[in-house]
Formats: sequence, C-alpha cells, structure tokens
Amino acid sequence: MKLQAAIDRVSLGDAITLAHKLDGIADVIEFGTSLVKDYGLYMIKENPVNLKHSKLLLDLKTIDEGPYEFEKGFEANGDILTVMAGSSYDTISKIYDITEKQHKEMLIDLLEVDDDKIKEIANFDNAIYGLHHSKDAEGNFDAISATADFHQKFPAIKRVAVAGGIDFDQAKGLAEQGIADTVIVGGKIAGTDDPVKAATEFKEAMTI
Amino acid sequence: MKLQAAIDRVSLGDAITLAHKLDGIADVIEFGTSLVKDYGLYMIKENPVNLKHSKLLLDLKTIDEGPYEFEKGFEANGDILTVMAGSSYDTISKIYDITEKQHKEMLIDLLEVDDDKIKEIANFDNAIYGLHHSKDAEGNFDAISATADFHQKFPAIKRVAVAGGIDFDQAKGLAEQGIADTVIVGGKIAGTDDPVKAATEFKEAMTI
Repeated sequence: MKLQAAIDRVSLGDAITLAHKLDGIADVIEFGTSLVKDYGLYMIKENPVNLKHSKLLLDLKTIDEGPYEFEKGFEANGDILTVMAGSSYDTISKIYDITEKQHKEMLIDLLEVDDDKIKEIANFDNAIYGLHHSKDAEGNFDAISATADFHQKFPAIKRVAVAGGIDFDQAKGLAEQGIADTVIVGGKIAGTDDPVKAATEFKEAMTI
Repeated sequence: MKLQAAIDRVSLGDAITLAHKLDGIADVIEFGTSLVKDYGLYMIKENPVNLKHSKLLLDLKTIDEGPYEFEKGFEANGDILTVMAGSSYDTISKIYDITEKQHKEMLIDLLEVDDDKIKEIANFDNAIYGLHHSKDAEGNFDAISATADFHQKFPAIKRVAVAGGIDFDQAKGLAEQGIADTVIVGGKIAGTDDPVKAATEFKEAMTI
C-alpha cells in the first residue's frame, strides 16, 4: 500500500523543502489545493520540485474545463492530477483520455457524491478513486469501514485511495484489510514537528 | 438585470487591462477559474485590479476547505466568491456566515447537482444561485427554459444567475422573463475583437 503525504497551507518554498525531505519516504507527495489556488500552476511550474523517487500529485480538484486544467497541471510537473467525481461525465472522460495519452495518472475525488454518481463514472480502469471525508464536514470518518463498504458496492474498481484524518492505527488497519491502494495523510505528517519521522512511522505501520 | 463579464484563459495582465475597460459597463467582472488556478490568489492580491464601478468576482469554485479559500479570496479583493453546490452543507454554511460577516457576496454554482441537493442548500437567502452548463458537457443549453424550470421548482430562491454560452437573444429573453438577477457572459464578450462594444450591446439587449 502506498503512502501519499499531503502538504497544505504553507508557503510554496516550505512545501518544496518538505517535499525534498519526504522524497522517497512517501510514495506520493501531494501539493494540496491550497498551494494550487494560493500560488497558481505557473508558479509551481517555475519552481519545479524535481522529486527523485516520489510522484508529485497536484490536487487541482478540477470540476469543469477539464482539458484546460489538466494540460496546465501536467505542464506544472504533476504526475497525478485530481478531478471531482461531481464533474460531468464528459469532463472526466475527456481528461481520462488526456491522462492516458500522457502516461500519467488521475485521481477521481469522491467527495460528496452518491452511489448513483459513482456507478456512472466507475468505468475508468486506470483511475484512482479517492474516498474523501470533507475537511469542513462535522462528524467522524471510519476509514476502514468506509473502504470495506466501498469495495463491496464497487468491487470492479481496482484502485482506491482513502483520505480524511487517518492516523497510524487506521493506516495499519487499512494495510491489513488489503483493499486500498493508497492512504493519504495530511496534518499527521506535514503538520508534525518531524514530518520525516512521522512519514517513516506511517510506512512502518503500513508494512504487514 | 445585471451583466457579469467573465475573463478566462488569458494572462493576468491582459485580464486586468480588460477589466479596466469593462469597469462600469459590466456590473460584475469575473476572473475565471483559469486565472485563479494559473496565477493563484496571492498574485491576484499583489496586482489589484481596483475597479471603480463594477464588482470583482473570483471564480474560486470552492468545494472543500471553504473558510480557508474564502478568507484568501476576500484578501485577494474579491467582492463575490463562488462555491460549488456539490460541496458539503457544512462547507457552504460556514462560508455563508463568513461572507455575511464581511458584507460580501457568494455565488453557489449549481453545476451538475440534482434537485435534492439544491433543496438541501436552498436556505441561504442572500446567496446568488448560479445555473451553469458545463463547458465540457456535450449538448445545448436553453438558458431561458432552464431559468423558468428552476424558478418553478425553487420559487423561494430570490437571486439567480445564469451561465452557459448566452448570446444577445438569450440575454434579451432572460431580461424579458424577469427571473434572473444576473446573466454571465464569457467568450461572447471577452473573446470578441471589441469586448467593450460587445458588453455595451449586451447591456442594451438586456434593457427592456
């Protein structure tokens, strides 16, 4: 199971410094939506992070104008870009084709969509489907049972990523469960005093 | 009825130049999502457009982390910010409160949501609800009948904006219909050889 470490709400310089430290520890390093919207894709392109081992995910959260945003996101050195599941089918379909042609990856963020919508967009074989609990939502999120439920409903979806306040225990549980392809961790890595130590411990917790 | 002129997919410098030309002609000048994601809110803040007459809408298309994005958007001189109707109720509710406290405005973009979701979020009295046909979607959009349908279903929603390939005839028809508060026009103003002339003609078409 892969570890994705999300970096958010810091300066772009600090994000790049932290990305270099986590390079090769986290499998995927995410520049969160706050970095994209605060600094913009041109600035991210002009200050390339040049990871040696990890992949760079830019959390674009595209919801319309898919081809335009994905073109800019790949130019800004994103290996993986994100689109909202709430987008039109046409948006997702068009950028899936672009992503496949460029031999890159896309993550479809399932934030706030219902099962009918997921069924409608479940046919993109190489896409990663991201179970995602809103940062603004009240209430708790049980990542392990949510992943089990999702897999039962959509067994044909092969690549599942899970995000939403995941801690060591949940990461370990998800690894043991064996469904999720990727665990996405934000503040519990990037927000700690020693993100390298935290990421290393997450990787250890996930090794079963 | 107000005219909102959307500027997209140009350099920030060109967007600012065009915004100055349209200041006082269009009631609202929109910096589209492409400008937000290409240049970022910090750059937009550092290069203030300083409109004298028109309001500035920043098309953030927020879908999560609402309080953070709206704080940054208002700091970047947005008078009106946008949130996706597909966001969680908590996201919309939190930023509605922030917007009201700052005496600013928000537009809830109804892209790709169904009537049940609209019903759930129909209680934000001062928000503008934006009927919006996806740029990526195939098929045509009849703005006038879509607005009539919407008003019949949701008569309590007072402020309605309409976007999606609207031309002079549709703008005139919407003005005559008397439901929509705002018509949003993109390429048919900003993409013409003479955007000032086009915006002036839209305003004339909308004067009944």
